[in-house]
Amino acid sequence: MMNNLVFGLRPVIEAIEAGRQIEKIYVKKGGEGVLLGELREMARAQHIALQEVPVEKLERLTRGKGPRGAAANHQGVVAQISAIVYADVDEILAAIPEGGAGLVVVFDGVTDVRNFGGIARTAECAGANGLIVPMKNAAPVNADALKASAGALNIIPVARVGSVRNTLKLLQAEGFRVVAASEKAAKSIYEADLRGPIAVVMGSEEEGISKEVMKLCDEQVAIPQRGKIESLNVGAAAAVILYEAVRQRG
Amino acid sequence: MMNNLVFGLRPVIEAIEAGRQIEKIYVKKGGEGVLLGELREMARAQHIALQEVPVEKLERLTRGKGPRGAAANHQGVVAQISAIVYADVDEILAAIPEGGAGLVVVFDGVTDVRNFGGIARTAECAGANGLIVPMKNAAPVNADALKASAGALNIIPVARVGSVRNTLKLLQAEGFRVVAASEKAAKSIYEADLRGPIAVVMGSEEEGISKEVMKLCDEQVAIPQRGKIESLNVGAAAAVILYEAVRQRG
Repeated sequence: MMNNLVFGLRPVIEAIEAGRQIEKIYVKKGGEGVLLGELREMARAQHIALQEVPVEKLERLTRGKGPRGAAANHQGVVAQISAIVYADVDEILAAIPEGGAGLVVVFDGVTDVRNFGGIARTAECAGANGLIVPMKNAAPVNADALKASAGALNIIPVARVGSVRNTLKLLQAEGFRVVAASEKAAKSIYEADLRGPIAVVMGSEEEGISKEVMKLCDEQVAIPQRGKIESLNVGAAAAVILYEAVRQRG
Repeated sequence: MMNNLVFGLRPVIEAIEAGRQIEKIYVKKGGEGVLLGELREMARAQHIALQEVPVEKLERLTRGKGPRGAAANHQGVVAQISAIVYADVDEILAAIPEGGAGLVVVFDGVTDVRNFGGIARTAECAGANGLIVPMKNAAPVNADALKASAGALNIIPVARVGSVRNTLKLLQAEGFRVVAASEKAAKSIYEADLRGPIAVVMGSEEEGISKEVMKLCDEQVAIPQRGKIESLNVGAAAAVILYEAVRQRG
């Protein structure tokens, strides 16, 4: 599902300047020009994902979106506007009640829209204070993600950050312990203390949490595996960890 | 994804007589004849789902499946062979180690293939002894389900039953307590005793557990909801319940 699209070089630049939150910019492969150079620079400075695509992709996106059902004029550039209004990490922290133990979920490479939306729903149900997603290597927060979240993405604050590592350091400075699930951990989630302020990191479906992020974690915890399959899917793992925190917090 | 198909009236009847396990039979809408009547009777007797479909659906299924890439000759009948070898409920029960507390998952209306596969994976990881799925109103156990289960459906025994209610009664007679998640339950999963032999019932994505099945449950338990969304998705709910059983069993 693709909607909330902006077509054309100038309209996309204006959307960014107007503060519209942009999920991704698609640019025609090999495109050149002064304005396009400006757009690339803006995207880089603001950590907006920009992808070079064959012109056919742009044509698919613009089909029927112009006047009277014609194709919209994309001029080699299409931007997808975010389906939600993002929050800042500071806003998420400020909204945690006085004396309450914060609970945030940090995504590090979860790219599947349905997994992302499902975890957002679980986090909202578990009373988490917010979600933190990287600008790159993340699922698009689009209509499908919103649907998979059963609307949770419109309720729980989501912050988008340029660097997961820097954000984890910020959270640690604010008193959060960073917890990562890992099959190799010696301590099980049931032995870990999940009552204080914690940031739970969920890694990619294929490769788990990246090494650089794992290094920053204060605690690695294992979800017990009683069968032959070596790991849960990321959505199930998130549910098990977040609800163990709910149980411990009572 | 559709593979493992058998085309034509006689081949399908022969497949059933040979004991091939069949997921579903598609029959051309308004089809008639003595042999077709026989096939309908066989399907009814063996609780095999049989669906009347427009001829276009059969043509889609048969496209390119005949000799030299031509369409296969479906004669108005196509059957989908199961992607796994089903077990019997008795086999699942017999395989529970002496003195071990059984843990089985019973599906009651979970029709989404990805949810079904995901729960199968979670159940295998949680050390469940088997899955029980109804013949009707269930997700097809096809290649997509197998993929979503990360292969778990080839490891954990799956039994297909004509009546979920009768199977629950059988499990109760064998000493199982039937546990259902319900948002309305007064007791939380953390207050329930999940250590003995239990059958966990997972209901449909839209309507939850059916009334007739709910009546048979020995215990209704609630997963705490700390947010505004009123419920977890069925895959997350299964993960929370099954892993609470893992935690309690130690």
